[in-house]
Amino acid sequence: MELKTMKDLYVSLLQDSYDSERQIIRALPKMADAAETPELKQAFEGHLEETKGQVIRLEQVFGMLGVKPKGKSCAATKGLVDEAQDLMSEAVEEGVMDAGLIANAQKVEHYEIASYGTLVEFAKLLGFQDQVRLLDEILQQEKATDVKLTKLAESKVNRMAQAA
Amino acid sequence: MELKTMKDLYVSLLQDSYDSERQIIRALPKMADAAETPELKQAFEGHLEETKGQVIRLEQVFGMLGVKPKGKSCAATKGLVDEAQDLMSEAVEEGVMDAGLIANAQKVEHYEIASYGTLVEFAKLLGFQDQVRLLDEILQQEKATDVKLTKLAESKVNRMAQAA
Repeated sequence: MELKTMKDLYVSLLQDSYDSERQIIRALPKMADAAETPELKQAFEGHLEETKGQVIRLEQVFGMLGVKPKGKSCAATKGLVDEAQDLMSEAVEEGVMDAGLIANAQKVEHYEIASYGTLVEFAKLLGFQDQVRLLDEILQQEKATDVKLTKLAESKVNRMAQAA
Repeated sequence: MELKTMKDLYVSLLQDSYDSERQIIRALPKMADAAETPELKQAFEGHLEETKGQVIRLEQVFGMLGVKPKGKSCAATKGLVDEAQDLMSEAVEEGVMDAGLIANAQKVEHYEIASYGTLVEFAKLLGFQDQVRLLDEILQQEKATDVKLTKLAESKVNRMAQAA
């Protein structure tokens, strides 16, 4: 695709995020399976449902733009998902696996916080108020998930990993 | 490498960040060349010098651990760098290139904020106080770079892109 205007760049970044969320939907059930702490398992399962809702919101944004929601594959997310898979294939002590899964998931969340932070700003500048609302809802969910993972790491998982 | 203990995971994540910073050192001069706004060019050049200092800090951390600073290649950073290269190979309107470069650089910064946030926590739990200090210095630099890029986008670059 040719990137000429800010709107082209916006659409290109949206397609990137759309592919990213769909990769995450495939990865999260495996991460929930690999998690040992029940709270972490639940956090991944909860975020899976949330992510499915985010994909629907992104499809609404594409609908408003009259653009097909598909296209480029997000190489950064692929790298992050591959790293999670490498971790899950390791023979890790109890506790350590969960600490590693949280570290990986927080990289994904921060990737998305940066992505949606940019998309919200672009949608504002382009005057797409309804899209600002949808994208900001996703941004707030990603931030909340990051905070939840930090709390879970600090309150329980890291101490279990330390004891391993 | 086998990941058994929290320290193994810590070393593995450090190697990941070490490779990530070295990839970024190779990418930043190209991003500075591609940037049109003088302030963005300077921001990338400044962050390049900062990143070289970060690599030295990481080498100090490896020295304290008695571990060789090399190993795994960071697939997520590779993905992010590839995305920046794709953008730079596009025929983009003036202003739009810089907005895209900032969007990409902020994804990298957030990736690093998550990475060093985890590393600082792990170093604390493992009782490596000198390493906490070094890693927290890097974390604060990454956060400051992210804030600087947001300000530059909001004050100048996004408006230029919008006018393209």
